[in-house]
Amino acid sequence: MTSHVIRIGIAGYGNLGRGVLAAIAQQPDMQLVSVFTRRDPATVKLPNPAVPVKRLQDAQAHRLDIDVMILCGGSKDDLPVQGPELAQWFNTVDSFDTHPKIPQYFQKIDDAARAGGNLSLISVGWDPGLFSVNRVMAEAILPQGTPYTFWGKGVSQGHSDAIRHVAGVRNGVQYTVPIQAALDRVRVGENPQLSTREKHTRECFVVLESGADPKRVEHDIATMPDYFADYDTTVHFISEAELKRDHTGMPHGGFAMRSGQSGTGDPQVVEFSLKLASNPGFTANVLVAYARAAWRMKAMGQTGACTVLDVAPGWLSPKPAETLRKELL
Amino acid sequence: MTSHVIRIGIAGYGNLGRGVLAAIAQQPDMQLVSVFTRRDPATVKLPNPAVPVKRLQDAQAHRLDIDVMILCGGSKDDLPVQGPELAQWFNTVDSFDTHPKIPQYFQKIDDAARAGGNLSLISVGWDPGLFSVNRVMAEAILPQGTPYTFWGKGVSQGHSDAIRHVAGVRNGVQYTVPIQAALDRVRVGENPQLSTREKHTRECFVVLESGADPKRVEHDIATMPDYFADYDTTVHFISEAELKRDHTGMPHGGFAMRSGQSGTGDPQVVEFSLKLASNPGFTANVLVAYARAAWRMKAMGQTGACTVLDVAPGWLSPKPAETLRKELL
Repeated sequence: MTSHVIRIGIAGYGNLGRGVLAAIAQQPDMQLVSVFTRRDPATVKLPNPAVPVKRLQDAQAHRLDIDVMILCGGSKDDLPVQGPELAQWFNTVDSFDTHPKIPQYFQKIDDAARAGGNLSLISVGWDPGLFSVNRVMAEAILPQGTPYTFWGKGVSQGHSDAIRHVAGVRNGVQYTVPIQAALDRVRVGENPQLSTREKHTRECFVVLESGADPKRVEHDIATMPDYFADYDTTVHFISEAELKRDHTGMPHGGFAMRSGQSGTGDPQVVEFSLKLASNPGFTANVLVAYARAAWRMKAMGQTGACTVLDVAPGWLSPKPAETLRKELL
Repeated sequence: MTSHVIRIGIAGYGNLGRGVLAAIAQQPDMQLVSVFTRRDPATVKLPNPAVPVKRLQDAQAHRLDIDVMILCGGSKDDLPVQGPELAQWFNTVDSFDTHPKIPQYFQKIDDAARAGGNLSLISVGWDPGLFSVNRVMAEAILPQGTPYTFWGKGVSQGHSDAIRHVAGVRNGVQYTVPIQAALDRVRVGENPQLSTREKHTRECFVVLESGADPKRVEHDIATMPDYFADYDTTVHFISEAELKRDHTGMPHGGFAMRSGQSGTGDPQVVEFSLKLASNPGFTANVLVAYARAAWRMKAMGQTGACTVLDVAPGWLSPKPAETLRKELL
C-alpha cells in the first residue's frame, strides 16, 4: 500500500468528534487537517491549537486538502443533511445508526458520492458496524443456526432521553443490561427462543423534580410503551450530585452470537463481544480505522457508498499485507 | 452477484473432506461435482453415491467443470505438494495452518495461481482464519493495546501425537485448556502480562501398554520440552474402552482478544470466541463459505494467492449486498 499520510477532516465536534481527534493521534499514518463546525469556529477550542477550526459551510473549499472527511454528527438531524452534501466533495466515513433508514440513506449517499467520484463508508461503528460484520460472517459460515444480539451493560441515549421526558423527572440515565442466564443458555448451544423480557433488563437512575411523586414516576417509566413496558425495569432515585458523580461515563458493549450446526451436525457457537468504558471513544477509534479503508478503496478505484460489509480486514491496518500475513495471520 | 451455481470439487477425503461434503449441502448456491482422492476411488464411499469419486492425479482434466477446488489435505505433507499443483488449474481454498511457513507457502501458491489465472485463498479456517481476522481488525482499531489468544478447551492433534510417541503409551488424547482466571483478568481490562504457564493447562488421557510404569510415563510426558515442560500438565490413565467412549470427539475453540485504550484514554476490550463441538466440522463450514468468496473475487478479476485478510465479509454470504444491508447491517 501507499506510504502517503492520510489527511483527515472532522465534521462536527461533539463527543464523537473529540474522540476522533484523539484516535487520529494514535495512528502512524494520519494527520488531522481541520475540524469543521456549524458553530462559530472561534468558540471551539481544540487540545492542539495548531489545528484550524473552520465553518462547515465552507468545507467544499478544502476538498483538495482532505483525503477523508469523518462525519461526527448525529443520525437523527445531522447526517441525513450533511452526509449527502459532504459525499459530493469528499471521501467520507460516518456512523449513521438508524437501522430502518439505512437503505434510504445508503441510496442518497451513493448518488452523491458517485456524482463526485468519491467513496463513502456509511454506518461504521459497532452496531451497526463490527456486530454487523460478525452477524454476516457467522450466518454465511453456519447457515443453519440462530443469531443473538445482546446489548450492554451500557447507557442507552434514547432510553435516557425518554426518562427525562417523564413529568417529575429532572435528570436520568438508563442502563441496558443483558441477562446472564440468557447469555449462558446461548453459549452452551441450547439455541433458546428468547422473549424481549428474557434478554435484557433496564435499570434507571432518576433525579426527581422537587415535590414529584416517586411512585407515579416509577409507574410512568415502567409502563412506557416500546421503551420499557416489555422489560423488567428497575428505577433508583438518586440526587443530582450522585448522578454527576457515578453516571456521567458512557460505558457500553454487548454480544453478537450465533449458535448453529455445521454440516456434520455438530453444535458450534460463535461469539463476538465488546466491553467498552466509553461508547463514543471506541466508536471514534472504529471510524478512524475505517477512514484508512475508505482511502484505500478509493485508491483501488472504487466510488459510491459502501458499508463495513464491503471492507476486507487487511484494509483497516497500516501494515502491508505481507507483514500482516507474517505477524497476525 | 451472480445467480450461477458454484461447482465445487473436494481434493482429499478424510475428516475435513467429509465435513466439506456435508457443509456444501447446507449452502443454497453450491453443488458438489466430484471428490478427488489419492486412494483407489473404488474404495471411497460417499453418502451420496451420485457424486463421482476420481483420482487426484487426473484432476486437471476436470478444470472446466469445477469453479472452486477445496483442498482438504494436511498441512505437513499434502498441501505443500497439492496446493501449488492444483492452484495452476483451479481456484482453490485450503486450510494451510503451519504458521511459520505461511509466507513461503503463500509465494508458491501465488506463483502457481497467477500462472493459471486463478484465485487461491490460503490458510482459511479459524486459526489461522477467523482469529486472524479479529486480530487484525482489533489491532487496527485499538493500536494501543495488547493481543491475547487462548485455545481450547480442545483436542490438540500435535500434542496427542507427541503423547503417543512416549514409550509405554498405547494411545492418548491431549486437551489444551485455557485458564479461566487469565481470561477473566484480560476481560476486566487488566492488561496482564501472562506467561505460557498462566494461560493454558494441558490435560492428557493415556492408555498404557501392558506392563508400562505409569510414574515414568507421566514424568516423560510432563517434562517433554516444547510440548509440555512449560505447562502444568495432568495425566489420567484410562482404558482403551474409556478412550473410545469419551475421547473420540474433536471439540475445540478459543478466544482472540484485545485489550486496549481508545484515543480518549478509556479501556476497551474486544473479544471473539468459538465453542466448537467438532473442530473439522466447523473448519469445513468456514472453507465452504470462503469458497464462495474465492469464486466472487475471481469473478471481480482478481488472481493469485489471498488470505482471509483480503476478503470482505459480504463476499462470504449468498445474499446480495442490498439484502445484507437491510437485514443484517
